[in-house]
Order: sequence, then C-alpha cells, then structure tokens
Amino acid sequence: MELLKEKILKEGHVEKNCILKVDSFLNHQLDIKFFNLLGQEFRSRFKNVSIDKILTIEASGIAIASITSQYFDFIPVIFAKKSLDAAPNTSHFETKVHSYTKNLDFTVRISKKYIKKDEKILIIDDFLAQGSACLGLIDLVQQAGGIVAGIGIVIEKGFQDGGKILEKKGFNVQSLAVIDSLEDGKIIFR
Amino acid sequence: MELLKEKILKEGHVEKNCILKVDSFLNHQLDIKFFNLLGQEFRSRFKNVSIDKILTIEASGIAIASITSQYFDFIPVIFAKKSLDAAPNTSHFETKVHSYTKNLDFTVRISKKYIKKDEKILIIDDFLAQGSACLGLIDLVQQAGGIVAGIGIVIEKGFQDGGKILEKKGFNVQSLAVIDSLEDGKIIFR
Repeated sequence: MELLKEKILKEGHVEKNCILKVDSFLNHQLDIKFFNLLGQEFRSRFKNVSIDKILTIEASGIAIASITSQYFDFIPVIFAKKSLDAAPNTSHFETKVHSYTKNLDFTVRISKKYIKKDEKILIIDDFLAQGSACLGLIDLVQQAGGIVAGIGIVIEKGFQDGGKILEKKGFNVQSLAVIDSLEDGKIIFR
Repeated sequence: MELLKEKILKEGHVEKNCILKVDSFLNHQLDIKFFNLLGQEFRSRFKNVSIDKILTIEASGIAIASITSQYFDFIPVIFAKKSLDAAPNTSHFETKVHSYTKNLDFTVRISKKYIKKDEKILIIDDFLAQGSACLGLIDLVQQAGGIVAGIGIVIEKGFQDGGKILEKKGFNVQSLAVIDSLEDGKIIFR
C-alpha cells in the first residue's frame, strides 16, 4: 500500500535492534483518518472472504481493528487481553505469547462467549515480526472451534520469520507494508 | 443516553463487589456500530468546545476514543500506556494510577511529543469509578502544559467518588450513563 509506505518513510524512524518507531500515527498517537484507509485496504484484500468477527490483541491492534470493522459491515471486534497472571480461568480460552520487545511471557485470553464453533475470524494486528502474537491468536480461534479466515497486518518485518511461518501453515496473510531491512537505520520495503 | 441505558440493561450483568460486566459490547467484544452512536453523543455533549486531541488510556478506552475522533474532524487520538515498570523515562510524562479491580499500581506514560502547551484535550474513557485513571490522565495533560477541555465517560458509577472529585475540581464531565446503585445485582440509573 503506497500511502502507508510513504507515511512510514515520512514519520517513522529506526531505533537500535531494528525497532521501527511509528508512534506518531500507528501505536501511540493514532491517525484515525489514515486508519480508515487501512480499513478500506483490508476490505479490498479480503473482498471475497466471508468473515463473521475480527480478533485482535491489546493494545495497539484495537484501534485498527475497530476502524476496519466499519468496512466489514460493523462486524464485532474482540480484543484478546494480555495478563502476567497465569492462573487458569475456565470461562476463557488462553494461550501463551512471548513478547520479544519486553522479553516477557504473557497469558492471552478471550472469553469463551465471543468466538463460537465454525465462526470465520479475521485476525488484525499492527505488526508482524516473529509471529508470536499472531500464533497465539490463531491458537485461541482454534481452541474455540473457529476458522481463521485471514490475517491482516499493517506492517510486516519481512526479515523476521512470522510471515513465513504463517504462510507455511497455509494462512492467508495480507500485510499492507512489508519491510525487508532496517539495517543501518534505513527502511527498505519489499 | 437512553439507548446506552437500554443496552446496559439488556446485555450487562452485575457480579460480586458491584462489578458491572458489559464485555459483550464495551470492553472485550466491541459493538462498533454502537460506538458510532457514542461518538455522536460525545460530539453533541461537547458541541461548543474547541478540542485539539483526544487522550485515553489502554486498553478499553482506545476503541471508543478512536471512533469518537471521527465525529471531531478526525483529530488525533493518543493512548496512555500502562506499565508495571516504574523506571523513569525522560522522553515521557508519567504518573501513577491505582487499579482497584486489579489492586495494582501502574505507571502510566505518554510521549512528550504528542501533547504540547495550550493544546485542548478531551479525555475519553469507558468507565469512571474512583477516578484514579482519569486523575492520572489529567496529571499527564497538565504536565505537558495542555488544557483539559472536557472529560467524556461512557459509564459512570455514580455511587463511587470519581465524578464528584472531578466536578469539584471544575472539570466538564459528561457521562453518557450514570449508575446510582448495583446493590443486589440490580442496575439503578440516576
């Protein structure tokens, strides 16, 4: 998506360890008009796909998923909750997600009430890097007996393994921008 | 807001310790069409108020703030980030917020880049109870030299002190539904 690449080049900057900061529009300050363009783009990428609900994970995925829902006939959005508390909870499906940025394991949960057997779920998130959050969300959908109908990512770090792992498993992953390198602070798109 | 009260009565339920669960539409599964009505209502409540940015706090405030922005000419949304890590960070304004539900103190931060002196800020959140999160957000705005132009809350627990504290300090608090009691599992609106 050209507009997204331009926005990343204009507003993003690269920190050490290949961290791309896009907090002026994507994950701290939020550009809601621009999110509407992202939502439209996800709609066109998943044009012929039947989807019942959108699943995302707190916190940065929530705004993107919510605006995107508006382009999918306002289907419900569910956000999985992260917790450091590992005490099992019979009313929820839960899984483990490792955060590489924080170097922590989170328990991630959704209530059993909100994804049902055979429901077709679109997973939406801001970043795809190693794929840990995404694999966690897939696990939650599958525990519920739902079907992962697609995965929509705003920015994929193509030099990390998440995208490859998900495609190898057969998922339809649509990343609106794929970055092949952040070496020497330079942003190179695929 | 009558539609909100009806939705709370229809979908909400009361758990022990006067906890109102509205996670079918407000803070786990999200009803984005309904959030558009909330956004319109906030616009009409703050019709004559000049506002530059919306500030909320992760996670449940993000979707409401994002949809609401669409009714305020797509002004930027900033969400304050919660962390258990108290290490000071010179690039951010930070404050402490106590979570009564989790019985934990969080450090809550916003980047110094996104609220500037004299900017007029609308604070949006899903719940107002003791007011701890809201007072934290006010503190962040004031550290930045910004002006709290208004506070928009979806559900205020009127039997707790947050609303009174904020009004005594002179803030324009607009709560779309105020609950006066949850005793015996019964939802009584003001």
